[in-house]
Amino acid sequence: MTDRLILTLAILGGTGNEGPGLAYRWAQAGYHVIIGSRSSEKAAGVAAELNARLERDFVDAMLNADAAKACDIAILTVPYAAQRATLEPLKDVLSGKLLVNVTVPLDTENVAGVRMPPAGSAAQEAQEILGDGVSVTAAFHAISYIHLRQDGPIASDVLVCGDSDAAKEQTLQLVAAAGLTGWDAGPLQNSVVAEGLGAVLIGINKRYKIKSAGIRITGEQAPT
Amino acid sequence: MTDRLILTLAILGGTGNEGPGLAYRWAQAGYHVIIGSRSSEKAAGVAAELNARLERDFVDAMLNADAAKACDIAILTVPYAAQRATLEPLKDVLSGKLLVNVTVPLDTENVAGVRMPPAGSAAQEAQEILGDGVSVTAAFHAISYIHLRQDGPIASDVLVCGDSDAAKEQTLQLVAAAGLTGWDAGPLQNSVVAEGLGAVLIGINKRYKIKSAGIRITGEQAPT
Repeated sequence: MTDRLILTLAILGGTGNEGPGLAYRWAQAGYHVIIGSRSSEKAAGVAAELNARLERDFVDAMLNADAAKACDIAILTVPYAAQRATLEPLKDVLSGKLLVNVTVPLDTENVAGVRMPPAGSAAQEAQEILGDGVSVTAAFHAISYIHLRQDGPIASDVLVCGDSDAAKEQTLQLVAAAGLTGWDAGPLQNSVVAEGLGAVLIGINKRYKIKSAGIRITGEQAPT
Repeated sequence: MTDRLILTLAILGGTGNEGPGLAYRWAQAGYHVIIGSRSSEKAAGVAAELNARLERDFVDAMLNADAAKACDIAILTVPYAAQRATLEPLKDVLSGKLLVNVTVPLDTENVAGVRMPPAGSAAQEAQEILGDGVSVTAAFHAISYIHLRQDGPIASDVLVCGDSDAAKEQTLQLVAAAGLTGWDAGPLQNSVVAEGLGAVLIGINKRYKIKSAGIRITGEQAPT
């Protein structure tokens, strides 16, 4: 296998909660992963930690802009408040690529209350910022970062929203590579549900004293 | 037990898909149920069918306005397009009562696309129409009406949203009485997620050839 066949994933804002867990799982699945950050030092620290755990140098560290330039697919894992400032300078380097948005907008007065931006959701706002040249999907919102960093199965499914079927297919492959079950949950406008579940599950964790609540899709497969 | 201890539930628009199934389950659980409709004939037909199945006269039929007047708790199961016209004349008779809103707003051009009214969700719009005198909760959105009409367990949980804890508690009792598992999913603004899941699951049914997809909340109970 040549390097050309190995996809490069850039996790922008990859030093936070979800980034390292996703990077660990994708590197294990054979992807080349770049941890992107505003701080090269922080990115290098996370990459070194992951490589030590993986016992091989699978993970690189770069500034967000360099990571976005070097990647085939970008994954945005910044807190919602940093989304616009992170994406605006990356519009050109991301052109023609896929951006998987993991960001969940939270109501700063009540993190268990669903509060969406005027665009409808964080992913729809990302699409507005980046323009039509970038394919945006929304995914990985209701996944416990604690579980992501551990080996083993995670009892939560992933809803994938997007307006391009090809982009959703690529995102569903990343979901499977991370050891999770993904579902095509419809157009990007449906990301309000996927992102909003993030806030709903924070509330359920708190009210029911559950550790990292998630969701599963149920239903009988119809005979084909 | 005197009649005063038996709560009366009015299912407004109760001749549609969800109404008869909910009525059947609540009548079995010991509630007095009224099927409300714009047509007394239609309401009487559904009530007669249910009483035949229950082998006792547990279910009454009335016009929506009479049902709303006679009940302790009202449940709205009209299609979203009929919500405003149904609720506006009931503002006064519902004053001081609880309205459980089952309505899911669907994008008429694409029923698998989440499209919310300007108020944020159907339940928030219902609250606007009815004013502060009525407690509104949102529940029962992602439940298969086919399963509701059958006996036996249903593999889908119910997210309950509302701004009053007492109203949510009463709604969660109705969820349990229908044989379902309910979750306090936070304030009424979170109903965008519960209602939106209705559209997301319609899409999943279609794309994955699943019969009546639903959701389950997962997660480990933390040690208390």
